[in-house]
Amino acid sequence: MTSLLPYDNLSPVARAAYQARAAAEQLAPLPRAAKDDALLAIADALEVRAAEVVEANAKDIAKAREAGTSEAIIDRLTLTPERVRAIASDVRDVVALPDPVGEVVRGSTLPNGIDLRQVRVPLGVVGIIYEARPNVTVDAAALCLKSGNAVLLRGSSSAYESNTALVRVLRDAVGGAGLPADAIQLVPGESRDSVRELMRARGLVDVLIPRGGASLIKTVVTESIVPVIETGTGNCHVYVDAQADLDMAVDILINSKAQRVSVCNAAETLLVHQDIADAFVPRALDALADAGVTVHADQRILAYAEQSKATVVEATADDWETEYLSYDIAAAVVDSLDKAVEHIRLWSSGHTEAIVTTSQQAARRFTQLVDSTTVAVNASTRFTDGGQFGFGAEIGISTQKLHARGPMGLPELTSTKYIVTGDGHTR
Amino acid sequence: MTSLLPYDNLSPVARAAYQARAAAEQLAPLPRAAKDDALLAIADALEVRAAEVVEANAKDIAKAREAGTSEAIIDRLTLTPERVRAIASDVRDVVALPDPVGEVVRGSTLPNGIDLRQVRVPLGVVGIIYEARPNVTVDAAALCLKSGNAVLLRGSSSAYESNTALVRVLRDAVGGAGLPADAIQLVPGESRDSVRELMRARGLVDVLIPRGGASLIKTVVTESIVPVIETGTGNCHVYVDAQADLDMAVDILINSKAQRVSVCNAAETLLVHQDIADAFVPRALDALADAGVTVHADQRILAYAEQSKATVVEATADDWETEYLSYDIAAAVVDSLDKAVEHIRLWSSGHTEAIVTTSQQAARRFTQLVDSTTVAVNASTRFTDGGQFGFGAEIGISTQKLHARGPMGLPELTSTKYIVTGDGHTR
Repeated sequence: MTSLLPYDNLSPVARAAYQARAAAEQLAPLPRAAKDDALLAIADALEVRAAEVVEANAKDIAKAREAGTSEAIIDRLTLTPERVRAIASDVRDVVALPDPVGEVVRGSTLPNGIDLRQVRVPLGVVGIIYEARPNVTVDAAALCLKSGNAVLLRGSSSAYESNTALVRVLRDAVGGAGLPADAIQLVPGESRDSVRELMRARGLVDVLIPRGGASLIKTVVTESIVPVIETGTGNCHVYVDAQADLDMAVDILINSKAQRVSVCNAAETLLVHQDIADAFVPRALDALADAGVTVHADQRILAYAEQSKATVVEATADDWETEYLSYDIAAAVVDSLDKAVEHIRLWSSGHTEAIVTTSQQAARRFTQLVDSTTVAVNASTRFTDGGQFGFGAEIGISTQKLHARGPMGLPELTSTKYIVTGDGHTR
Repeated sequence: MTSLLPYDNLSPVARAAYQARAAAEQLAPLPRAAKDDALLAIADALEVRAAEVVEANAKDIAKAREAGTSEAIIDRLTLTPERVRAIASDVRDVVALPDPVGEVVRGSTLPNGIDLRQVRVPLGVVGIIYEARPNVTVDAAALCLKSGNAVLLRGSSSAYESNTALVRVLRDAVGGAGLPADAIQLVPGESRDSVRELMRARGLVDVLIPRGGASLIKTVVTESIVPVIETGTGNCHVYVDAQADLDMAVDILINSKAQRVSVCNAAETLLVHQDIADAFVPRALDALADAGVTVHADQRILAYAEQSKATVVEATADDWETEYLSYDIAAAVVDSLDKAVEHIRLWSSGHTEAIVTTSQQAARRFTQLVDSTTVAVNASTRFTDGGQFGFGAEIGISTQKLHARGPMGLPELTSTKYIVTGDGHTR
C-alpha cells in the first residue's frame, strides 16, 4: 500500500498519519503478550532515561517562567525523577489490564448454520489533542498501544520539549521490542495548523479525542470531519431532595464541590428542594463557607444569606451554565424533584448529577429522568472517573452519546467486526 | 424548558427538532409495554387507512411518470394495499423484538461498596435522511419508537405525498395510544436546505443517519456538525484462495455478485490466488457469463478471456474502487493471500469481504488482517444484513468504526448511562 502513496508531497502531519496507519495495520493482529512486552520496555526505558526527560522538561519550565506562567500551571508542567517513575508505574498498571482486542461481544449460530461472531478490533489511528500535562503523553500512548491502536499525539506547545523527549523514549522502547515505532508519534508543528490538518484527515485518522479547555473542545467538535469523541466539560449538579439525611447531604455537597475544584467531575451547582430548604440551606452555607466556597445564589437562597457567615453573591443567568473549576458554586431552591430535573436538562453539560435522598421513589425517578453520563444516588459527583469505576485507566470522559459515554477505558478504544463462517452458504 | 425557547423565531426544521426533543424526554423512561402498544396501534392504523396512503402515493407516482422516471424507480416508490399491509406486518415484527432500553451492559460493586451499573438509554433525537422508498419511513419510525427515540424523517421529495400520508397515520396512532405524536415528524421542506439545517442542529439532534446514494452520504459525513453514522457504500470483495473448493467458490461468487445486484452487500470485485487461477478463472468466467455479468479484468484475468464466452473488458484503476450495483464485476489475479489483503485495504469501502478456502490458516489470517465490518469465510457477502444476522430489523449498515459497525439493530439506536449508588460515599 505504501508504495502507491505520494509520500514526497505530503505535509509533515499527513506523513505522520500515513505512517501511523501503516503501523496500526501491524498492531491490529498482535497478541496481548507482544503489546505487554512493549509496554514493559516503555516503563523500563522511562526509569532508565528519566534524567533525559527531566532535562528536556527544564527547558519548557524555563520558557514558561520567562513567559510569566502561573506557578499552578508550572507545577502541572513539571517533571521530576519521582514523577517520571510514577508515570512508568502507571504504564505497568496498563500491562496488568486485560486486552480488549479479540473479545467476542456477541456470538450465535444462525438458523441456517452460519456461525456469527462480533469481535473487538482496534479503532486504528487515534488522534489525541491535549494541553499542558506531559503525563498525558505517556498515558495516552500506553492505552492506545494496549488496545492495538497507533496514536498521534498533539500536545501543548508549552510542553513541546518534554513531549519530544518522552516520545523519543517511547518510540525507542517500542522499536526495541520489535513493534513499529511509528505507532507512537508526536504531531509536528506547534501552531494551530497541525490541529486543523488533523481535523481534515478523514480516512487516515479514525477518531480525534480533544482533552483540554472548553474552547479547544468546541473547535474540534464543530470543525472536524474526522469523527470526534467530545470529552470533559462538567457542569455537575448536587440535588438535595425533600427527604434527605442532612449530614450526608452536607458531606456529599462539600466533597463534590471542594475535594478538588479544578476537575470536570466537581459540582458547580447546588439545587435544594423547597421543603428542606429551611433545615438544609443554613447548614450548607456554613459548610461551604468553611470550605472557602463563594455561593452564587438565586433569590430564595439569598434569603438565608444574612444569618450565614458564607460569602453569597446574587446569581445571574450565566451562573447556571458556568463550569467554575474554582471555589465557587451556583445555588437555587426548586419547587420539586421534577423542577430540579428541568433545571438540569436546561443547564447541565450532561456529565454527572447527584441526588441526596432517603426516598426510593425519588432516587428511581431522578435516575430515570436525568440524561447525563452518570447519575449518582447518595454519592459524590467525584466518583465519575475511570480509576474509581475500576477501569484501571482512562483516556478521557466522554460527554457525548455516540460510541462512548462517561469514563472511557480500553474497550472504548476499540470497534468491532463481524466474522461470518459457513460451509459454502449462499442466499 | 420549552417556555424559555424562542419558539416564535424558529424555522420549521428547528421547531420540529425542539418538539422532537421534548417528545424524546417523554419517551425515554417509558416501559416496553407502552411503546409496544403504540407500535400495534401503528400497525392497525396502517391496515385500516391503507387506501388513504395508496391515494397519496398515486400523486407521487403520477408526478414521477410526468418527470420520465424509470419504471424500476417507480416500482420502488409504489405502494399498493398489499405493500402497506406488508409494512404493517414489519411493524408487528418490531413489537416482538426485545426493548434494548434498560439493559444493564456492565455492573459491579466497587471496592468501596458503591454499586455501579451501566444501562442502555435512548439516543434521544435521531435524524434519518433517505431516498425514494416510502417503507423506510415506517421502518425507521418503528425502530426509533421501540428504542425510545424521537425521529426526524427527511425523505425524498419524490415520495413527499406518500411520506406525508404515512406520517399522518403514524402520528395519529401514536397520539391515540397516549404517547407524544411529536416523537415522529416529517422534516418540512423539500429542498436541500432542510438537510443543511439538520446538519447544523447539534445539541438538538443526537445523530444523523444518511441512507441512500454515495453523494448524499459524503455530503452529510463531511458537512454535518451533528454526529453522523455513515452507512451503506459497499465495494465488497470475494477472494478465492490457493486452496479452495471450486464448486463452492463458483456458488459464492455468483451468489455474492448476482443474487441481487443493487444492494450494498453485493460483491463488486473478484480476487483469485495465482496458484488456482488456471483451474478457477475459466469456470468463474463461464458462470459469470451465464449470470449475465460483465467482467472488468486485469491483465492476468484477460489472458483467460479468449477461451471464454464471458464479456470481458480491460479494467482501469477506477474499476477497483467502483461500487457497480449492476451486472458488472472487477477481477484480478493476486500473488498471495497477503496481496489480496493489500488490494482490499487499498480499495475496499470496508463493508464485507469473503474468502473461499479449505485452509484453516488462510481463513484465520484473512479474518485477522481484513479490517471491514464483516469478514465472511466460505459464505456469501450477501449475509451482511440485520435480518440475516437475526437482529430482527435494521436501521442501516454502518461502514464506520465509531459507535456501530455493520448491520445496526435496536441496541445500536441506544447510548448508555452510569448509575452510581452509594450510602453517602465521598472521596
